[in-house]
Amino acid sequence: MAKRSDEEEVKVLGFWVSPFVLRVQWALKLKGVDYDYVEEDIWGGKSALLLNSNPVYKKVPVLVHNGKPVVESLLILEYIDETWTHPGHRDSILPTDPYERAMVRFWAKFAEEKVLYGGYRAMCLSGEEQLNAANSVAESLEFLEGAVRGKKFFGGENIGYLDIALGWLAYMLEVWEEVGSMKIMNANKFPCLATWMKSFVNHPFIKDSLPPRDKMVHYFEERRKVLASK
Amino acid sequence: MAKRSDEEEVKVLGFWVSPFVLRVQWALKLKGVDYDYVEEDIWGGKSALLLNSNPVYKKVPVLVHNGKPVVESLLILEYIDETWTHPGHRDSILPTDPYERAMVRFWAKFAEEKVLYGGYRAMCLSGEEQLNAANSVAESLEFLEGAVRGKKFFGGENIGYLDIALGWLAYMLEVWEEVGSMKIMNANKFPCLATWMKSFVNHPFIKDSLPPRDKMVHYFEERRKVLASK
Repeated sequence: MAKRSDEEEVKVLGFWVSPFVLRVQWALKLKGVDYDYVEEDIWGGKSALLLNSNPVYKKVPVLVHNGKPVVESLLILEYIDETWTHPGHRDSILPTDPYERAMVRFWAKFAEEKVLYGGYRAMCLSGEEQLNAANSVAESLEFLEGAVRGKKFFGGENIGYLDIALGWLAYMLEVWEEVGSMKIMNANKFPCLATWMKSFVNHPFIKDSLPPRDKMVHYFEERRKVLASK
Repeated sequence: MAKRSDEEEVKVLGFWVSPFVLRVQWALKLKGVDYDYVEEDIWGGKSALLLNSNPVYKKVPVLVHNGKPVVESLLILEYIDETWTHPGHRDSILPTDPYERAMVRFWAKFAEEKVLYGGYRAMCLSGEEQLNAANSVAESLEFLEGAVRGKKFFGGENIGYLDIALGWLAYMLEVWEEVGSMKIMNANKFPCLATWMKSFVNHPFIKDSLPPRDKMVHYFEERRKVLASK
């Protein structure tokens, strides 16, 4: 990984299981940017740095670059891509063509709203409500199946912005399925997405970065209990 | 306004009162890009072009550029900025500095979620629910007041991406206040925002583009009735 210059501060405020935080870490790794990681106690007590860096939402991830905080994971990806453009860093994570850029931004936003929030919500529900929510997520997966058809990664031959944005799907959806006792993903129905999931989690940049599965299951079981009691 | 080349097709599928559609039209005007406008009958029957161009959401605005559809207004703004960069078109609508770019994208998303959707929801509610919703929107306006303090426009001396994204606020919030019999904006509390609102609606590029006020009031009264009966 490329070293920073001595004067350059690159810090990620994160939380181990957050898919939003992993996006930022993956992007920095892919671009070859060295950084310090600071784990936040988001359910206990958030640090003053986090509260001051993100006064609006008070959430991780925050990328602190030379004292300036950037928040919201998808916006941080764009910031990383636009900032470390000098020689020694990888090519752009986003495509260069404006139309392709619009498309990956579209699918990233779509997947976040429909699949990520939808899938998490389905995990926390039960009965008919859960079934409806899970079906709705599966319908959204059909669009993503179409978007990856004929390609190894959403970014083509290499991992790109959309792979990073959707990466959580490749290892976390099945954890949510287990915790919620539900089924959303179907490899027969979404074969291209299933192949992508395997390629993604086995990618050298990704495979050692994923949170331990048992710890994730335990964490989401606890979250589900808390949310179900509200 | 700059003419397109004969081969270049630039079409906007819109709806007269949509603040999302106006964003796209403002951006094209500011960049000096000539375009054809197609009004959609969004409550009656949407055109085949709209349904085919935006199969996921089936919503306006759609920018069709040489047969390729781009959807979601904030993403269309980025597309416009990245596409028409050659001489004869205005400088970038977004700032050039990556940190400033991240900030305007952040405030645009924040304002859309908290102020636009929040304000519309408040208009459709009543009683204590409405009061709580309106207070929540007013709290969010405090952040925008801070973001425009000391500047003529959010973009500095000139209208930029964030002005375009927030433009609806300058003329539509007070219509929603009238229709919902509520008060959110307070010029004494948000003097910088109040000054910006005046500068924005009187800007030569903006003032003749706004929908007729009476027609807006009537439209939102009808929408409120429909939504309240659900």
